[in-house]
Amino acid sequence: MNARQAQVESALAAAMPDAANAPQRLHDAMRYAVLGGGKRVRPLLAFAAGELAQADPARVTQAAIAVELIHAYSLVHDDMPAMDNDTLRRGKPTVHVEFDEATALLAGDALQSLAFEVLAQPGLVDDAATQVRMLNLLASASGSRGMAGGQAIDLEAVGKPLELPQLEFMHILKTGALIRASANLGALCGRQLDDGELIHLDHYAKCMGLAFQVVDDVLDADASTATLGKTAGKDAASNKPTYVSLLGLARARELAGELRADAHVALGGFGKEAERLRQLADYIVLREF
Amino acid sequence: MNARQAQVESALAAAMPDAANAPQRLHDAMRYAVLGGGKRVRPLLAFAAGELAQADPARVTQAAIAVELIHAYSLVHDDMPAMDNDTLRRGKPTVHVEFDEATALLAGDALQSLAFEVLAQPGLVDDAATQVRMLNLLASASGSRGMAGGQAIDLEAVGKPLELPQLEFMHILKTGALIRASANLGALCGRQLDDGELIHLDHYAKCMGLAFQVVDDVLDADASTATLGKTAGKDAASNKPTYVSLLGLARARELAGELRADAHVALGGFGKEAERLRQLADYIVLREF
Repeated sequence: MNARQAQVESALAAAMPDAANAPQRLHDAMRYAVLGGGKRVRPLLAFAAGELAQADPARVTQAAIAVELIHAYSLVHDDMPAMDNDTLRRGKPTVHVEFDEATALLAGDALQSLAFEVLAQPGLVDDAATQVRMLNLLASASGSRGMAGGQAIDLEAVGKPLELPQLEFMHILKTGALIRASANLGALCGRQLDDGELIHLDHYAKCMGLAFQVVDDVLDADASTATLGKTAGKDAASNKPTYVSLLGLARARELAGELRADAHVALGGFGKEAERLRQLADYIVLREF
Repeated sequence: MNARQAQVESALAAAMPDAANAPQRLHDAMRYAVLGGGKRVRPLLAFAAGELAQADPARVTQAAIAVELIHAYSLVHDDMPAMDNDTLRRGKPTVHVEFDEATALLAGDALQSLAFEVLAQPGLVDDAATQVRMLNLLASASGSRGMAGGQAIDLEAVGKPLELPQLEFMHILKTGALIRASANLGALCGRQLDDGELIHLDHYAKCMGLAFQVVDDVLDADASTATLGKTAGKDAASNKPTYVSLLGLARARELAGELRADAHVALGGFGKEAERLRQLADYIVLREF
């Protein structure tokens, strides 16, 4: 896992414009936002799904960093004063604090463009029609019926009573869409999976998307700011509905365990080629930060 | 031209999620930002370049609206308090005024994703490898070495002395990159142009990108807010360097005329199929709003 994370880090560093090139401050902010931190869960999922489809790791790397660039841009915008107004991310000042709001806005915008530029690299996969499909998939997972839409629902929900189905709908968009895209993009870099295989992989990814959020909520309620590298206890302070506030800590932990089990069941028909996906399910649920 | 503009309007309306679908406020803001206004210069350029390459207008429409969605998202973010802090656009309150800042931020983000989703529609052009190239082109024209980069340079320049070459570099990125992309994307929807033809078309588009900005500066110095539909005289008020502030009004007008002439020369080797591009050069330079 450490090796994969290092590979992602160096691929991200290579994909981003050098901070010595104009506009320097913008490039500096983009690199600051993306490099030197993060668990790289989405890239790890893309690699694990790539192994399932015997994909060339060099190709998966490009798909993986495209997803990670989308994720990174969303964090930059999410932290801004108009949204979550957060000052700490991955143990460092957030981009608008370290630079300024206008630069944070533009850096996020440019990171989104860069994600599509990376994924639209000529010859990324053998069949260009598959590549177009991958681009369409990343775009729809990022947009108003995906990640950005989930953030909009999240914003509207602050201070309002939210029932479990609405909370789930929000997270399916906000976190789930991009996590599903990670797995699907990784797999699309390799041999063509049949419909049954795709359905199982997608179900696994849905479980992981929800589990990731449930565990995040548990950790936010539980852990200290130093361990998380971002402001802890923020959800409760901002009166945001979470799995913990709706279900209680014990039931939220239990739910995460059920989603992990469900993910393993979804992979039941696969052999050793799904081993990495199984390990990742365990990591996502059992992690402590 | 009116027919084309109407066609673009209805294609944009069809491409955007219905405001009745969740998240409603976000979809409402996206539609508000995009529909019911704008000269649609970039789509018109795409159509004109499409005619040069005998492209199917239905295909060009999709490429044209993809570019327009990028343009629209950039206006939403550009108007925000962290950037230009403008309250009026196309005669209406800007998105963050009509809705709120967080919604404006997310609407811009989601419009950028939507642009790539539209351009990554399966089967948009016959050759999927060409479509991947088109996606790469739009992404790089939008990013830090294109439009977003130009805006970053623009921000850094406020209140600073700027010489003509730096002003030109800024505009080549800020406006020029997307205008060039419009022409190239329109042409890529049709027959393959040879290298010479592509160079001439691209030179034409470069002239148009600069001319568009020079004329904008002249109009901003000259016209009233009512005619422009956005706050007039704003450049001077915010001490922004413009072609008018650097060259004076008379020389700026002259430069626009020279760029128009240069654009016509670039089209000299083409016949009737370039007629629409010629008309558009005249429109861009001779327009009064």
